[in-house]
Amino acid sequence: MTTLELAKDFTNILRTGDHEGAAAKYNSDSIASYEAMEGPMAVCRGKEEVRAKGDWWQANHEVHGASVEGPYVNGEQFVVRFTMDVTPKATGQRITMDEVGIYTVQDGKIVEERFYYLET
Amino acid sequence: MTTLELAKDFTNILRTGDHEGAAAKYNSDSIASYEAMEGPMAVCRGKEEVRAKGDWWQANHEVHGASVEGPYVNGEQFVVRFTMDVTPKATGQRITMDEVGIYTVQDGKIVEERFYYLET
Repeated sequence: MTTLELAKDFTNILRTGDHEGAAAKYNSDSIASYEAMEGPMAVCRGKEEVRAKGDWWQANHEVHGASVEGPYVNGEQFVVRFTMDVTPKATGQRITMDEVGIYTVQDGKIVEERFYYLET
Repeated sequence: MTTLELAKDFTNILRTGDHEGAAAKYNSDSIASYEAMEGPMAVCRGKEEVRAKGDWWQANHEVHGASVEGPYVNGEQFVVRFTMDVTPKATGQRITMDEVGIYTVQDGKIVEERFYYLET
């Protein structure tokens, strides 16, 4: 499977809203995940830790709508843009999140994901 | 100047359509530029070579409209998304280009730019 094929399938799974399924299928056991913000989950290492971060996020946000654009591909990397209409339960304030993820592929698995947030 | 400040100013200059001015202001003398496609300009090294690539692009495309989204920021990197309504003079076929650039900053200058194209 080429990076392009992986990127397309991964992005198509994300479009269905199944982030957990996409990660389960393609994340490497040794994936490193980097958020843009500081905090205890700024860097997660390993498929299980990344899955736990996703579970935390799902439990703490109400998602009203989402869009996925991509994949944008260059070599062993691809980019996906996410816009999400969400209410973080901590604040109760409905917001639009706009971010991109850059994914790096090795041997048919995602070994790194790094997220960038829109600054306005 | 922080990476965030640089990213915002660079992106604001791009929004005015002045790609050459943005590059002149912020590209490092030793910038490396990576396109997604194969070809003689797949990798350009140095501010002058990158400027020459830009000149070639301008001379060979008619731009009908463009939009710039970003910057998306994480640490010393930022991402800009470009959509362009253009006619490449070689084909005469009007197309929409949709791509992202990932920029890496060191010491207040852009030392790497890498472009990713939307695959549909």
